[in-house]
Amino acid sequence: MMSIESNGLKTDLYELTMAAGYYQNRHNPQAVFELYCHTMPPNRSYLVACGLEQVLDYILTLRFRPDDTRYLKTLPIFKKVDASFFRYLRNFKFSGDVWALPEGEICFANEPIVQIRAPLIEAQILETYLLSVINIQTSVATKAARVVSAACADGRRRPVVDFGARRAHGPGAAIMAARAAFIGGCLGTSNVHAAREFAMPVFGTMAHSWVEAFESESAAFKRFHSVFPQHTILLVDTYATLAGVKKAAALGRGIRGIRLDSGNLHTLGRRSRRLLDENGLTSVKILASGNLNEYKILNLVRRGCPIDIFGVGTEMVVARDFPALDLTYKLVQTKCGNAQVRYHMKTSAGKHTMPGRKQVFRFFNQDNTIRKDMIGLFDEKPPAGSRPLLVAYIRRGRRVQAPIASEKLKKRSAAALSHLPGTYRSLRSQKAFPVMISPRLSRLKTVQARNQGGC
Amino acid sequence: MMSIESNGLKTDLYELTMAAGYYQNRHNPQAVFELYCHTMPPNRSYLVACGLEQVLDYILTLRFRPDDTRYLKTLPIFKKVDASFFRYLRNFKFSGDVWALPEGEICFANEPIVQIRAPLIEAQILETYLLSVINIQTSVATKAARVVSAACADGRRRPVVDFGARRAHGPGAAIMAARAAFIGGCLGTSNVHAAREFAMPVFGTMAHSWVEAFESESAAFKRFHSVFPQHTILLVDTYATLAGVKKAAALGRGIRGIRLDSGNLHTLGRRSRRLLDENGLTSVKILASGNLNEYKILNLVRRGCPIDIFGVGTEMVVARDFPALDLTYKLVQTKCGNAQVRYHMKTSAGKHTMPGRKQVFRFFNQDNTIRKDMIGLFDEKPPAGSRPLLVAYIRRGRRVQAPIASEKLKKRSAAALSHLPGTYRSLRSQKAFPVMISPRLSRLKTVQARNQGGC
Repeated sequence: MMSIESNGLKTDLYELTMAAGYYQNRHNPQAVFELYCHTMPPNRSYLVACGLEQVLDYILTLRFRPDDTRYLKTLPIFKKVDASFFRYLRNFKFSGDVWALPEGEICFANEPIVQIRAPLIEAQILETYLLSVINIQTSVATKAARVVSAACADGRRRPVVDFGARRAHGPGAAIMAARAAFIGGCLGTSNVHAAREFAMPVFGTMAHSWVEAFESESAAFKRFHSVFPQHTILLVDTYATLAGVKKAAALGRGIRGIRLDSGNLHTLGRRSRRLLDENGLTSVKILASGNLNEYKILNLVRRGCPIDIFGVGTEMVVARDFPALDLTYKLVQTKCGNAQVRYHMKTSAGKHTMPGRKQVFRFFNQDNTIRKDMIGLFDEKPPAGSRPLLVAYIRRGRRVQAPIASEKLKKRSAAALSHLPGTYRSLRSQKAFPVMISPRLSRLKTVQARNQGGC
Repeated sequence: MMSIESNGLKTDLYELTMAAGYYQNRHNPQAVFELYCHTMPPNRSYLVACGLEQVLDYILTLRFRPDDTRYLKTLPIFKKVDASFFRYLRNFKFSGDVWALPEGEICFANEPIVQIRAPLIEAQILETYLLSVINIQTSVATKAARVVSAACADGRRRPVVDFGARRAHGPGAAIMAARAAFIGGCLGTSNVHAAREFAMPVFGTMAHSWVEAFESESAAFKRFHSVFPQHTILLVDTYATLAGVKKAAALGRGIRGIRLDSGNLHTLGRRSRRLLDENGLTSVKILASGNLNEYKILNLVRRGCPIDIFGVGTEMVVARDFPALDLTYKLVQTKCGNAQVRYHMKTSAGKHTMPGRKQVFRFFNQDNTIRKDMIGLFDEKPPAGSRPLLVAYIRRGRRVQAPIASEKLKKRSAAALSHLPGTYRSLRSQKAFPVMISPRLSRLKTVQARNQGGC
């Protein structure tokens, strides 16, 4: 998915001008930045963290090539910047530490998802790319978890497949969305490239064009079945849906399923099931698609509609109801040489931040359900009954955790969600999960807010 | 932006299984597919067509490498497919024609944006990629046109800059969104890679982290100004906004602008302007950012808020209110050798399509405003007073129109919009622009619908 080298120009200009400004001012303390979600999206009490693997890949391979720095030098804004800064960029290689919430874990507002500790210039340059990758993947993984939970709301396992490649925001987004949807709980994807890249199952049926391209619907069905005898899922709604189901049923037990892509899925699902069953095709599955989302699926499931598999595209891969999380990447502390640590926070209207490098502690009940989280300072001892969530992935520029198979990340998200009390998993949850602030962090925040009043 | 070769696996599996099915059934007639928007998004009467250049690039460079076909052969669904099909893929090279609406032109529901005429297999394989690229770029170009029109609603020119890289759906989406935002009317982008790739102006200010990284806000401002004397736009809301403005004003005429990124922009804008003016800094600009969209900007402009430049991110680059268009790619006709043309249409509930290869004719009034459009058949003579909109870009696999500079595409969209009557440009427009169906197309549709009743 990623190129061998990640291009340093895939960022906002201001990251590079600030880098030049820090460089020229010889101001490059050790800095800690944290990426987190400031406000939760509506109807969601949790997020499924996703995108870290691509973030790590980017950080480790980020380079500036000669043509990149040549281009930068042509920009008027860099006119007064020393040539040595561009040499610095040419030699750029991330030298810091990355701590993060493991992918697939769930998190809540204000909890760091990625934490960068590095010289200020290095940490600053990463901002734009990190925000965009964590945004799309965490949005989609969370949406997928919701869709999958709706599909299984009655306790029966109904797979959900990502059909979103055509609606994602371009082919790059499609690949990231497919990965995130899988980690969030989907059975697989229709995206071939993503499936290969991340070792995910790949699925497909047929388009309406297939049915139209032959002399009749029956002929189209037969022709498909002749080539894919074990894998035939017939799209039955090109003309009149129930007539299509009858033609599919006429092919007998050889077919694996039918797909409904329009109309009233509840009614058509029931009638199709009856038609199939009357023909002894009780093992033929019904797949439904067509602008589905978690609410529509929950409604179908609650009404007992006999749909076995859902294909979900648009709504999931663009996270339609909330297509961009309120993610932020904030400087929380710096340290120059042997000087004391300086803490940083914003105090602008509605955008207060919390100073200091942090850790998140998760508390569990005896039955393994999550009781609460506490955001504390990085060097706090984990309180009794809790475990720290942020883990080291890169130390001094070297990766210290091997990549984890997508399948395992999916299991992790399923486990994490199963430990979250049901009330926070509801599709309309407005309830904030209890996230405390440790006494030490709380004191630091108060002191810091007071000090900054006068700066 | 694009790789030298576009990878054939960046598509839905079903495009490739259908390709195999057509191949194995020796069914590969000349086919025509059309990509269009089925239903307009709410509050929009027009779309700004965008993304064609990346579509053409993809079509001309689409290849299957040995490892691609090797991967496909491992999938159980391809088990019964002849080895010769994979050789076919290995030799794949698009041989057909592409007609399209020029980028930057405006269009309406049901009007073809891209039209592919090629052997069925070739045309089918393109579907997924084309939909995703036209979707993101047309969504964003349209949104940008709306945002820019709001910013200039009182007749004064206030530039809008794309600040969306961090919120776009990954770095690939960010580049496409930056291009589309520019074509839709933005002055430039913060995305360095996109700016270089598409020769667009690139802009940036500073982050809150810059301000926090120094010993005081004043020091941070001075340090920035020392490195970027002609290009200093100071972010004033890290702590107390108006105090920040005063510190910026203390730097005098050297600075170019200030940026407001939070709080009540109307009040802060007026007070900031007054503070700057009182210090004789009448030429210092005020830039506003922070979750802006066309409605918020229109409100600020209508209330006379003295903001000079808008930085717009999230809402524009993910087209927040409607992040995925209802685009569709439909088979409209096929022709086997010397046989008669066969017309194709879907008749499923709510998804009727129109058969036959089409052309769109646009009618103008004497003052050059657009009067109406008419969708007709491809070989119809343009009716008097109209001009056909779809143009040939690729013929027999060869490009016949050179790429057009982004700057020119932006001018084209501005011109096209200026010719659209104001009522259809309103931000809350629910009014459908008059798009007629030609009598010949209408007859074909009726006959075809009747014929398909019995198939």
